[in-house]
Amino acid sequence: MRVIEGSITTPKGFQVSSLHAGLKRVKKDLAVIYSSSILTAAGVFTKNLLKAPPVVWSERIVKEEQGVKAMIINSANANACTGDMGSANVIRMADATANILGIKREEVLVFSTGVIGVQLPMEKVLAGIEKIDANMGSSREDARQVAEAIMTTDTYSKEVCIEFEIDGKVTFIGGIAKGSGMIHPNMATMLSFLTTDVAITKELLQKALIESTERTYNMISVDGDTSTNDSAIIVTNGLLGNTLINDENSEAYRIFSKALDMANEALAVAIVKDGEGATKLIEVYVNAADTIENARILAKSVISSNLVKTAIFGQDANWGRIVCALGYAEVDFDQFKIELYFGSDAGIIKVFDKGMPLEFDEEFALKILQQKSIRIVINMNNGSCEAKAWGCDLSFDYVRINGQYRT
Amino acid sequence: MRVIEGSITTPKGFQVSSLHAGLKRVKKDLAVIYSSSILTAAGVFTKNLLKAPPVVWSERIVKEEQGVKAMIINSANANACTGDMGSANVIRMADATANILGIKREEVLVFSTGVIGVQLPMEKVLAGIEKIDANMGSSREDARQVAEAIMTTDTYSKEVCIEFEIDGKVTFIGGIAKGSGMIHPNMATMLSFLTTDVAITKELLQKALIESTERTYNMISVDGDTSTNDSAIIVTNGLLGNTLINDENSEAYRIFSKALDMANEALAVAIVKDGEGATKLIEVYVNAADTIENARILAKSVISSNLVKTAIFGQDANWGRIVCALGYAEVDFDQFKIELYFGSDAGIIKVFDKGMPLEFDEEFALKILQQKSIRIVINMNNGSCEAKAWGCDLSFDYVRINGQYRT
Repeated sequence: MRVIEGSITTPKGFQVSSLHAGLKRVKKDLAVIYSSSILTAAGVFTKNLLKAPPVVWSERIVKEEQGVKAMIINSANANACTGDMGSANVIRMADATANILGIKREEVLVFSTGVIGVQLPMEKVLAGIEKIDANMGSSREDARQVAEAIMTTDTYSKEVCIEFEIDGKVTFIGGIAKGSGMIHPNMATMLSFLTTDVAITKELLQKALIESTERTYNMISVDGDTSTNDSAIIVTNGLLGNTLINDENSEAYRIFSKALDMANEALAVAIVKDGEGATKLIEVYVNAADTIENARILAKSVISSNLVKTAIFGQDANWGRIVCALGYAEVDFDQFKIELYFGSDAGIIKVFDKGMPLEFDEEFALKILQQKSIRIVINMNNGSCEAKAWGCDLSFDYVRINGQYRT
Repeated sequence: MRVIEGSITTPKGFQVSSLHAGLKRVKKDLAVIYSSSILTAAGVFTKNLLKAPPVVWSERIVKEEQGVKAMIINSANANACTGDMGSANVIRMADATANILGIKREEVLVFSTGVIGVQLPMEKVLAGIEKIDANMGSSREDARQVAEAIMTTDTYSKEVCIEFEIDGKVTFIGGIAKGSGMIHPNMATMLSFLTTDVAITKELLQKALIESTERTYNMISVDGDTSTNDSAIIVTNGLLGNTLINDENSEAYRIFSKALDMANEALAVAIVKDGEGATKLIEVYVNAADTIENARILAKSVISSNLVKTAIFGQDANWGRIVCALGYAEVDFDQFKIELYFGSDAGIIKVFDKGMPLEFDEEFALKILQQKSIRIVINMNNGSCEAKAWGCDLSFDYVRINGQYRT
């Protein structure tokens, strides 16, 4: 199992198209991911009560339909807080896409990301959809263009490809994503689209995605706010020809899940690194905890603390803010067992042990924290469960970007 | 019932003392609040698992003992993450205070605030405690000096006094507090001390404080991090001579609770206004909600959002971030009933209604948001319950203050 150069068109049988429909000024803003073979789809969708109309549509299709064939995605407008007209426009997008591809409306998932509270410019969107068929392709470059077309405030596109073997056959999970930072008028959204050709039941595909999401996208924190449009989707056309994976205890399921985790983790970390104003990636490792759930809660509490994020921005080995964030996580533990380290490519240093801070070399700590990628390692010494969380620091630029007037 | 110029020495029978023991470089850092009459005490303490030794001590005394006579408070050192020696030092502080005042160890509450992970300089602390008796007084200025002596990173001292009547007798609740912003090496703590002379049972005093804390200190957000030492205390010597309040349905209890709320709200707002780098006070009103609990959850979700705080810093009428924060609060509501307003001394403007944004006068909205005190008013139109929450904006100075190297 390894990361290779590749994307959503690396697995067999996927075609994509992207173009400029005029929602953005110059760049591409409309994309489609298509398979002529029926796709088994699984999805995880925002829990925000103000779900955007496209999320409501796609969540229903994923849940109720046995297969889909296309995903249509527009950027620059989230079609959120748009009422009944917003819902009608989703159906118009699905209809138009179905028409041009010669498939059914219920075989089309619809996604939107961008400004909220503004109706989609449907003439532009529909005119754009008319052209998707002409641009269809499956090259590495075609996929890269799709990754760019779904960007809003992202500063770079995010792609991944994992190569692995099922039944002795080489296969892939490819993926693209866009970030979750929010800038008004662009309330950007976390979107992630994964493709594969592994034959797996809908139930297990959904299970694998949910569990992987809990370990990856749910363990990242950029600014803590979850949006109206967040969605993570995986589709498979089953063209690999492997024995259908229908047993969660099988070796094939275990391998598939691991590949899925690798793909999602790579995209999640790419999203964090592209956090608004981020200067450093922060990885929090909680080890030797009593349960996985508690390890996750503790790691999330640390990565979500403004004071921790600001201290890392300031390259300050501030153990106090970390133990404080552990302490208010509402998880029971023994403070007199905890060990705390700061690490990076420059080394690792222990700063706290058994309920009390240690004397440490401040100069070495600073050298560690001057790196771009910082690890906070917490050993609870209370069991054998662990969790990882990822976040970025809180910088002047975060305030500048998010505090500027809407213009 | 009204706010008057006054403080913790305004109610009958309280004496205070403050001095420079040498924990801070120049300013006062040690204070005592004392009553020769026995004090009924109630307290609410941090839920952080890393409770500092003084919190452990004082929480036990408040819970187990029927009365206390003194509270000793030091600033500049929180005596947190200090292990067994920290616990021993709390007892040494209680003993020394009891000795000098001629009372029992179990009649002394101990509080500390400041840097964590460093042992108290006990020679200085004990030498300071030796001198508290000589400085005892009950003037307005004496109280003000105590309010200053408990400060850490606060930029101003926080005092309040509420005048009201019980059984036709004029009485007072006086209070002082210090803020919850954290700057390393001072991990500051929220401390609040209230005094009164109203006769009330220990049970009802505790009940009133818990309920008032839920409406006030628990509804403020500076940076979301709760510390190792947070404590809110009220003591009464019962010298007013009123009929003992022992019925939670009595008019006297209702009046007392209202006065307590007024005092705590004033201190809570003062803490928020003094938040690190704060340029604006934000008040979130959630009205017409189905339950008080849901109203509080929604208000807290909005006031805790970095994106909302940063938008207010930027004077941006960004309704999207507010509805988003409502949406992820994990409370059920109908988005198509919500109304949203921005208000201040410059006026009020409606920006969102029935699930969709309104066209509004951007120039007027900017004028509203240019004020120092901003109201976000959210009508859920789903019941008759309401809640208020207070916070401050997220500014460049927050990042500067909290991101600077420890020096």
